[in-house]
Amino acid sequence: MTQPPRPVHDTLNAFCPGDDTFLPGGAGPLSGLAFASKDIFDVAGKVTGAGNPTWRATHSPAETHAWVVRQLIDAGAELAGKTITDELTRGIFGENVHYGTPTNPRAPGRVPGGSSSGSAAAVAGELVDFALGSDTGGSVRVPASFCGLFGLRPTHGRIPRGGMLLQAPSYDTIGWFARDAITFQRVGNVLLQSAASPALPTQLIVAEDAFDLAEPETRAALMEAKNRISSLFETTTEVRLSPSSLTDWSNQQQILQSREAWESVREWIDRYNPAFSFEVSDRYVLARAVTDEQVAAAQLRREDIVARVNEVFAGGSKVVCLPSTISPAPPTGQAVSQRHELRLRNSALTSIAGNTGRPQISLPLAQVDGPPVGLSLLGDRGADEALMALAVKIAERS
Amino acid sequence: MTQPPRPVHDTLNAFCPGDDTFLPGGAGPLSGLAFASKDIFDVAGKVTGAGNPTWRATHSPAETHAWVVRQLIDAGAELAGKTITDELTRGIFGENVHYGTPTNPRAPGRVPGGSSSGSAAAVAGELVDFALGSDTGGSVRVPASFCGLFGLRPTHGRIPRGGMLLQAPSYDTIGWFARDAITFQRVGNVLLQSAASPALPTQLIVAEDAFDLAEPETRAALMEAKNRISSLFETTTEVRLSPSSLTDWSNQQQILQSREAWESVREWIDRYNPAFSFEVSDRYVLARAVTDEQVAAAQLRREDIVARVNEVFAGGSKVVCLPSTISPAPPTGQAVSQRHELRLRNSALTSIAGNTGRPQISLPLAQVDGPPVGLSLLGDRGADEALMALAVKIAERS
Repeated sequence: MTQPPRPVHDTLNAFCPGDDTFLPGGAGPLSGLAFASKDIFDVAGKVTGAGNPTWRATHSPAETHAWVVRQLIDAGAELAGKTITDELTRGIFGENVHYGTPTNPRAPGRVPGGSSSGSAAAVAGELVDFALGSDTGGSVRVPASFCGLFGLRPTHGRIPRGGMLLQAPSYDTIGWFARDAITFQRVGNVLLQSAASPALPTQLIVAEDAFDLAEPETRAALMEAKNRISSLFETTTEVRLSPSSLTDWSNQQQILQSREAWESVREWIDRYNPAFSFEVSDRYVLARAVTDEQVAAAQLRREDIVARVNEVFAGGSKVVCLPSTISPAPPTGQAVSQRHELRLRNSALTSIAGNTGRPQISLPLAQVDGPPVGLSLLGDRGADEALMALAVKIAERS
Repeated sequence: MTQPPRPVHDTLNAFCPGDDTFLPGGAGPLSGLAFASKDIFDVAGKVTGAGNPTWRATHSPAETHAWVVRQLIDAGAELAGKTITDELTRGIFGENVHYGTPTNPRAPGRVPGGSSSGSAAAVAGELVDFALGSDTGGSVRVPASFCGLFGLRPTHGRIPRGGMLLQAPSYDTIGWFARDAITFQRVGNVLLQSAASPALPTQLIVAEDAFDLAEPETRAALMEAKNRISSLFETTTEVRLSPSSLTDWSNQQQILQSREAWESVREWIDRYNPAFSFEVSDRYVLARAVTDEQVAAAQLRREDIVARVNEVFAGGSKVVCLPSTISPAPPTGQAVSQRHELRLRNSALTSIAGNTGRPQISLPLAQVDGPPVGLSLLGDRGADEALMALAVKIAERS
């Protein structure tokens, strides 16, 4: 098969440097749509680069497509290319020291969010119709929020991860971005292999402790957005999710995700001494120091967190509303220490779905002085289709 | 002044990629000699790259020559170019993940030693007559040993460090390499601004605990070399330097050097999130964790070490003999964990001069199944010229 040149003029530094990946579309439910794929999903014949030059240099071309790539191609979509990611998906801001920072078309001078940075930039900048990302600690939800897109972290385990670079398997999920709810749903129906139409949740639960973590202007803008959508539900109630604090919950994910992330690459790091940004190495060095005792304690705490969130969802057709991020995208070029602090604060929001394996959709429903910020809906396990349908319904109303 | 192209064909990956540094020679005591300079010494009009692409990208061209570069140029030597160094001088093996590993011409398939890797390779491979390096924790002595060269770590504070990248100021020194003792001394007389001829030490002291650290074959080869040179001395005696262990002494340098190294670059790292090898970041992250209490305790221990070595040197014209390294150069491409262990073992040898600020010369007097390994002489503070003169005398006899 002759591959025509990629028809995209990448003005956003969204695609991998030198990338010439292209798979033509065909007939199917996604016919006519072009997509970009985060460079952690295998494309046959291409090296999966994972945002790191040492990774690229020490791996061979993939033999087969990742399951999700195959699924989309078979559904008729065209793959326009591979996008820049934070190194080995370790980051939520999208500043890759090796390949540069994809432009955030919706918030000039600010980060696109990561680690699915190039995918979000490519969709927001209208280079493609939709794009694949992954979400371990916020890597779809954060860039969706920062770039004003629809983005879903699906139910953990819902979408097959074959041919995908794993970071921390008990947290890793595959997600996607689109600019509009209908396209978002069309793609989701293919990736989720959806059958029946879902019943829509009727009860909106506002997570007060999550809103309290947002910066004041962001909190106000997202509360307003929440008020706008509440008429779609029969009831709106408020709850405090964590009896301790969401930061405490997030700390458990930091421990567990760190351990898993270190185990995923420790042998490769020892063998190849990869070139990483200081920030990424720093996280691996700290991950290496996590003890078995810390892991065992965090696993027990994770069970408590799951039980508590089950309790919140019990007895009804519910969805929990929370900020996707504590603020719109921060400026590019912040100091490592600033980004570190900001990452931990955002993790207190993203780890709720992370620790519980629940689906969370970020909706582009607010702005703060121009830049977008997302409102999230957290659903029951398996309620991915319901979240997509809610997104469509909300979009129709606004 | 028109600068002709550098007349060196770099077959060893010794010079910095794309380097076009050249300063012509003139009349003076070093007339007719060409040298290379580790890329941590300023050359006016050029960016000092320090072995790291982020450092290079975030610094402006130097306005003036480093003191040592100016001194050599004024003495008539020709500067042929700048050489690869381990990142920010952090390493003793010379494997730079960004710019590659300079070839060890004397031991194919093995590392050249670092951090003054390119300088040692350029001299050993006869691309230049001599080369500048620096030595904080062994960065001249180790590559001298591995590449079969003469190399001196001078008395701390003896050679002005203006225009040089500092790593850990209380340990940083400037050294140089040559293939023969006479050239080595010619260069040294210029850098040390030597006046009178030195008196030669008459008593050879064999550091038993240092020899015990060497691998068996290396120990045997260096003991034989020691026996060959002992006839140049009136007496040969043996001593154990450390009442605890040389590893314990080295641990104190690890603490103090780490703290100083972190303080040297912490703000730059925070600002620019540099791309480092994992190994280098790892050392900085661990350095960041060093506590004030550890530093205070290590400073007291360092005073004990100085006092103990003063005691060994007391009452005579003495020089201490020890292995430069525990072995010849290891193979390239070892795992990070292997290199880490090997670095610590070598540091037990190199930290004796490091902690005490004493001069140490590595002499190319032994081989182990082909690859060279150096025998070192440790002198009194200020006895740099005496060590060079001993090197000449030893070379004349052999």
